[in-house]
Amino acid sequence: MPEIRVTDVRAIETAPMKGSNLIVVRIDTNQPGLFGLGCATFTQRHKAVVTAIEVYMKQLLIGRDATNVQDNFQVMMNSSYWRNGPVLNNAISGCDMAFWDILGKSLNAPIWKLWGGKVRDAVPVYRHADGKDFAQLDERVQSYLDQGYQYIRCQFGGYGGKTRYLNSPENTRPGTYFDALSYMRGVPKLFEHVRSVFGEEVELLHDVHERLTPVDAMWLVKQLEPYRLFFLEDALSPEQGHWWPKLRDAAAVPLAMGELFNNPMEWIPLIQNRWIDYIRCHISQIGGATPARALAAQCALFDVRTAWHGPGDVSPIGHMANVHLDLTTPNFGIQEWCGMEQDPRVQEVFQGCAAIRGGMAWANDNPGWGVDIDEKAAAKYPCDASQPAWLLSRLPDGTSVKA
Amino acid sequence: MPEIRVTDVRAIETAPMKGSNLIVVRIDTNQPGLFGLGCATFTQRHKAVVTAIEVYMKQLLIGRDATNVQDNFQVMMNSSYWRNGPVLNNAISGCDMAFWDILGKSLNAPIWKLWGGKVRDAVPVYRHADGKDFAQLDERVQSYLDQGYQYIRCQFGGYGGKTRYLNSPENTRPGTYFDALSYMRGVPKLFEHVRSVFGEEVELLHDVHERLTPVDAMWLVKQLEPYRLFFLEDALSPEQGHWWPKLRDAAAVPLAMGELFNNPMEWIPLIQNRWIDYIRCHISQIGGATPARALAAQCALFDVRTAWHGPGDVSPIGHMANVHLDLTTPNFGIQEWCGMEQDPRVQEVFQGCAAIRGGMAWANDNPGWGVDIDEKAAAKYPCDASQPAWLLSRLPDGTSVKA
Amino acid sequence: MPEIRVTDVRAIETAPMKGSNLIVVRIDTNQPGLFGLGCATFTQRHKAVVTAIEVYMKQLLIGRDATNVQDNFQVMMNSSYWRNGPVLNNAISGCDMAFWDILGKSLNAPIWKLWGGKVRDAVPVYRHADGKDFAQLDERVQSYLDQGYQYIRCQFGGYGGKTRYLNSPENTRPGTYFDALSYMRGVPKLFEHVRSVFGEEVELLHDVHERLTPVDAMWLVKQLEPYRLFFLEDALSPEQGHWWPKLRDAAAVPLAMGELFNNPMEWIPLIQNRWIDYIRCHISQIGGATPARALAAQCALFDVRTAWHGPGDVSPIGHMANVHLDLTTPNFGIQEWCGMEQDPRVQEVFQGCAAIRGGMAWANDNPGWGVDIDEKAAAKYPCDASQPAWLLSRLPDGTSVKA
Amino acid sequence: MPEIRVTDVRAIETAPMKGSNLIVVRIDTNQPGLFGLGCATFTQRHKAVVTAIEVYMKQLLIGRDATNVQDNFQVMMNSSYWRNGPVLNNAISGCDMAFWDILGKSLNAPIWKLWGGKVRDAVPVYRHADGKDFAQLDERVQSYLDQGYQYIRCQFGGYGGKTRYLNSPENTRPGTYFDALSYMRGVPKLFEHVRSVFGEEVELLHDVHERLTPVDAMWLVKQLEPYRLFFLEDALSPEQGHWWPKLRDAAAVPLAMGELFNNPMEWIPLIQNRWIDYIRCHISQIGGATPARALAAQCALFDVRTAWHGPGDVSPIGHMANVHLDLTTPNFGIQEWCGMEQDPRVQEVFQGCAAIRGGMAWANDNPGWGVDIDEKAAAKYPCDASQPAWLLSRLPDGTSVKA
Repeated sequence: MPEIRVTDVRAIETAPMKGSNLIVVRIDTNQPGLFGLGCATFTQRHKAVVTAIEVYMKQLLIGRDATNVQDNFQVMMNSSYWRNGPVLNNAISGCDMAFWDILGKSLNAPIWKLWGGKVRDAVPVYRHADGKDFAQLDERVQSYLDQGYQYIRCQFGGYGGKTRYLNSPENTRPGTYFDALSYMRGVPKLFEHVRSVFGEEVELLHDVHERLTPVDAMWLVKQLEPYRLFFLEDALSPEQGHWWPKLRDAAAVPLAMGELFNNPMEWIPLIQNRWIDYIRCHISQIGGATPARALAAQCALFDVRTAWHGPGDVSPIGHMANVHLDLTTPNFGIQEWCGMEQDPRVQEVFQGCAAIRGGMAWANDNPGWGVDIDEKAAAKYPCDASQPAWLLSRLPDGTSVKA
Repeated sequence: MPEIRVTDVRAIETAPMKGSNLIVVRIDTNQPGLFGLGCATFTQRHKAVVTAIEVYMKQLLIGRDATNVQDNFQVMMNSSYWRNGPVLNNAISGCDMAFWDILGKSLNAPIWKLWGGKVRDAVPVYRHADGKDFAQLDERVQSYLDQGYQYIRCQFGGYGGKTRYLNSPENTRPGTYFDALSYMRGVPKLFEHVRSVFGEEVELLHDVHERLTPVDAMWLVKQLEPYRLFFLEDALSPEQGHWWPKLRDAAAVPLAMGELFNNPMEWIPLIQNRWIDYIRCHISQIGGATPARALAAQCALFDVRTAWHGPGDVSPIGHMANVHLDLTTPNFGIQEWCGMEQDPRVQEVFQGCAAIRGGMAWANDNPGWGVDIDEKAAAKYPCDASQPAWLLSRLPDGTSVKA
Repeated sequence: MPEIRVTDVRAIETAPMKGSNLIVVRIDTNQPGLFGLGCATFTQRHKAVVTAIEVYMKQLLIGRDATNVQDNFQVMMNSSYWRNGPVLNNAISGCDMAFWDILGKSLNAPIWKLWGGKVRDAVPVYRHADGKDFAQLDERVQSYLDQGYQYIRCQFGGYGGKTRYLNSPENTRPGTYFDALSYMRGVPKLFEHVRSVFGEEVELLHDVHERLTPVDAMWLVKQLEPYRLFFLEDALSPEQGHWWPKLRDAAAVPLAMGELFNNPMEWIPLIQNRWIDYIRCHISQIGGATPARALAAQCALFDVRTAWHGPGDVSPIGHMANVHLDLTTPNFGIQEWCGMEQDPRVQEVFQGCAAIRGGMAWANDNPGWGVDIDEKAAAKYPCDASQPAWLLSRLPDGTSVKA
Repeated sequence: MPEIRVTDVRAIETAPMKGSNLIVVRIDTNQPGLFGLGCATFTQRHKAVVTAIEVYMKQLLIGRDATNVQDNFQVMMNSSYWRNGPVLNNAISGCDMAFWDILGKSLNAPIWKLWGGKVRDAVPVYRHADGKDFAQLDERVQSYLDQGYQYIRCQFGGYGGKTRYLNSPENTRPGTYFDALSYMRGVPKLFEHVRSVFGEEVELLHDVHERLTPVDAMWLVKQLEPYRLFFLEDALSPEQGHWWPKLRDAAAVPLAMGELFNNPMEWIPLIQNRWIDYIRCHISQIGGATPARALAAQCALFDVRTAWHGPGDVSPIGHMANVHLDLTTPNFGIQEWCGMEQDPRVQEVFQGCAAIRGGMAWANDNPGWGVDIDEKAAAKYPCDASQPAWLLSRLPDGTSVKA
């Protein structure tokens, strides 16, 4: 086998769906036509990721054996001394996924095959249904059911809680004001309504989006217990990791956590103590496919299942990496799905995206991840770094809070 | 890609080194010349493993996709309802390793490449030096050092402890009598001697072989602390799993455990509570390469490193599977090495075995595991099932005990 | 007393009830007419057990003192080095029970007498009522009540949960598909119904059969609390042993566990931490009557009561061993009863089986276990090893899972 | 009071000491001549920090009230959704410190005055003495003592452990090879020597630099107990946070940790469980002076004292922020000191640096931090991003490891 050496590392920026700045890493090799692609998308600070890739990863990786995926990962992770943060983890992820892509292509095999084959043929996904009122919500839930989806995350008014305080003349500071009382009283009614309309044959989910105090989360989880959710997601913030046992004991509600994680100390206690049921990390935020596979295996020891983060600020290459992980992970639970692959602009930029049939996502049989990018098309949709504050939440009194 | 379907599953029995009944599984496929080999060696009950393979695994697997390694593993594991025992785990292991071998060969790649490449070029190993007295022990240690080995397990008189009671006229029951007092007093002296002769530049190990009471193990580990072992192995039996925190707290001595494990409930508490430093499972006893890879990843979360069991009752295919795991596991620690690959009879039966250079084991670049078996040669060394009791230990009063 | 020495060890295979491959060990002695019988039934892998008996146990035991039951047990257990698995434990169990049988016969006494006599005259049993709908279930419950049974395990549609996904065109992998949501919503309704029809005078049980995620089991146990079950069985799998405290805390529902256990590390934490109320081991799976008696005594220390597994894949000799244990165990709770002894084919093969009167099982006063086998009749019902996958469960997405 | 609004945010790059890329943030306001400076130094990935400042912080902050230090901090921290990583924390830190600088200058007061005044007049510091042999080490220790320092960190051969394996022909992968055995045996001898030469009147420290396995750290800490260190630093890596109780119990040695921390989940368990004695965070890595003050207060609750990181890759502005924190923190312990302020090139670039007298660091009475930067001089010493791998450590077998 010829040695496959890295000759170039580049960041491709594109935003076919306005507001989602996608970063794709492309690694070229000394083998003609052999290159790899990976997702490094951190929409909110994408330019810092681009710098990390083009200034540091490039120098670090040129000349290395591109198929030495694991040593390359360790070297990238350890080389900055300070580590485990969102900017560097995304840069590492883009390269790590690109190395897996190169390895798959060099063996002419899809990555799910290298990883020991599929343990399921396709991947059940959940969709996000959000309504401004019951009628609109019902319509959206029904639409997903009609398309064959079986798992639906129900939200009310964005992530909810935008009420009386919103127009207070006292609150002049910019941000999204969040009224916990209104939110907490509303969500149980939401699920009472949805269960009454759609019955017990559909799996329901909900996202708290880390905006409650821990004790309010305890109260809410108890109210939701009768509706038997598939899971409740992000009921606490990452910094509140030691509150989970209290939430776990409050009610028998499946708990999902992790889209904001990028440090092992965030997930170790939750997993080893069996405080959560689903791990929802954003793959590029934890450093790519290599750490995600390890994390999935680690979760299996504790009966925690995977539910990787799959929003609009993941590129189709990242979504496909999720699908390859899902297909090969015995303790997979569910996959979040944003549906961007159905958008014609996304299809113009990315080829070979995951398909949806029967409420499930399907990989293709192409070598590597099986997704390609048209750089000319990508350039038609430039990224926009002009919104440095993504979601500025404030309490009714104006205090800036997480999420 | 053509579908690769299982057409036959066979157990090959061979004992090139008398006393070690080796079982190799061979799985044939519908692709001409494409077959896989795996290790299913459980020397002490090898015929039961052969039955499990040829009666059950064969029926279960024929017609399945041989490259669907993970689903095949799950199906084998779950299909017997009762599970996690040595006979069935070995049968499963033989098939699981053979499936990885087929996958590697079908992609024309060594398995270490599928798994993301080497994180080290070769694998440091430790050897076993056993002497009837200091002079003999010193000679053997020196011989290993001369050959370039850096890690040496020192034992005294077999596993030690065979003294005064041995010839007691009262003890008429067959078995190996074990005198704990003699053993415990002798081992610290052994290490005082070895350190005084060979200094501090050599890594030393020792195997208790599960023959002490827990409190005696606590006493011994405290005596050994000054000599700074690389690790102390099997200080307790698998059934004594809940004693580990007491041993952990007794002294700062690296603890290794696991060659007898075949049930997750044996290893979960030791790992998640960080009671041990090295996991030493016998790969075929836990079901093969698939569960071993998962276990290695799980151990990484808790800073436990791998030291897979590598005695004479593992076939060269199993030894090579250890090496592939070692090469690709970041949290690898050390590899036990019995040296059977240097025996001409073993070389007659097995081709492509792991090589030793510079005190380290090296894989080759052949596809799959890279080891083949000559069935005609194998047949020249038939197995022998006539010793149903492997190591019948008794206390000085005659009580039959573990190990 | 003359020395009673083992002269032969044989495995008798028979399947009077199609699908249940029964294995009976027969040990002959140097005393004319003095032999013992024991149950070694592991239906799913019965041929491997036969090999273990006829190749290994036979060599190991011939010449030994057959009445030295405990030392023989230790020797069998320790002789294979790797231990605590289903194949070897069953082989050991068959021999262990046969030794007790010989001891009883040599003293011309039933075994319950050797063990210190009965603490109760007969043994309350529970029966299994399963219906495809409420009407059929009600009919079966009523039928058991009419026959005098007071304890009834109620199930719905086999073990339940086979709904919408069953016919999904996406699910092409063979197996029994299980829909957790449908199952969980259905079971509380089942018990609401049964309590409303049959009132509070009947003891009700239910078997989850290890098919829920831990948090779903927590949810279910909370829903079932109002119906006051006698116990809920196998709410978790053996590998999920560290989840029991969460289940214990979720609701005041009696918890039973253990039919799949064959390793002490599986039961130690559950018992010592008082996480369960009933231990349900399958006697032959843990190695026979000797370890079962020890386990019963150990459970008494923690107020755990026995409820030994008694399904169709236990021979009438095994069922009778259960009854002898039950009669002599102060902390006995209940006995599962499958009723095979009423089948004429079973009666043709086995003589002296346990009798049922007043919803209770009764032993006889014959020496030993009091059950004999007619080998000619046994031979009329050959075993069948052609179904290597016993119960291949899959999640709705096709993932192979336990149980 | 006029409103003080942000008008510009810039990153100033300078490297007066080759190899340390320093980043200083300068925030200008609408008040003529009123600006603030802060340290944002992350040497290993400095260009990514510059991007984060100039693309994101600048947009986010322009127009805000510069004296609203705390709300600005919350907004910066929460605005990226993913947070708690080294690149973004440094960018935030630079701005946070600059805001404090502006606030102090706007009140014409040093920051230690705003914070409630000094609880001590000056700050004891420790220096780093490293020798290739005992003679060289002794000379350096003596030199520090002669200069009036009372606290000395003693190391041997860099961070030690570079021996026999370094020149192994097998180790072809680039990096610094580390031999744990050699290091562990050497360090106790080092302290035996230093204590014998310099007696008991000097406070000694040592830095493990996170390179041991946890059990080896346990062993080492026990060996060092007799020498009564002031503290042992970084005995474990941040990812090994759950091992601290074992180290705490191993010996009565003061433990210091934290230079690599940038996530609250890293420090919460160590502090709340009293597993460490000194917190050593790098202020800019945790987000600046605002979070550092909170952390110091939190540590006081648990008797943990501060020992902020003070190496060469902190700018003199960052060092001065350390000093202001030290002067105003009741539970201050010690300050690491690298001595860069004595270098003429540093003095050329920075004015008003902390002074050393009597082994202690002294702040000045200038408003704000009291340190200024000469941008023209700064430009004479450009940064260098050409070494993307800072310290690539490898085990003797070639495995890439942390630190």
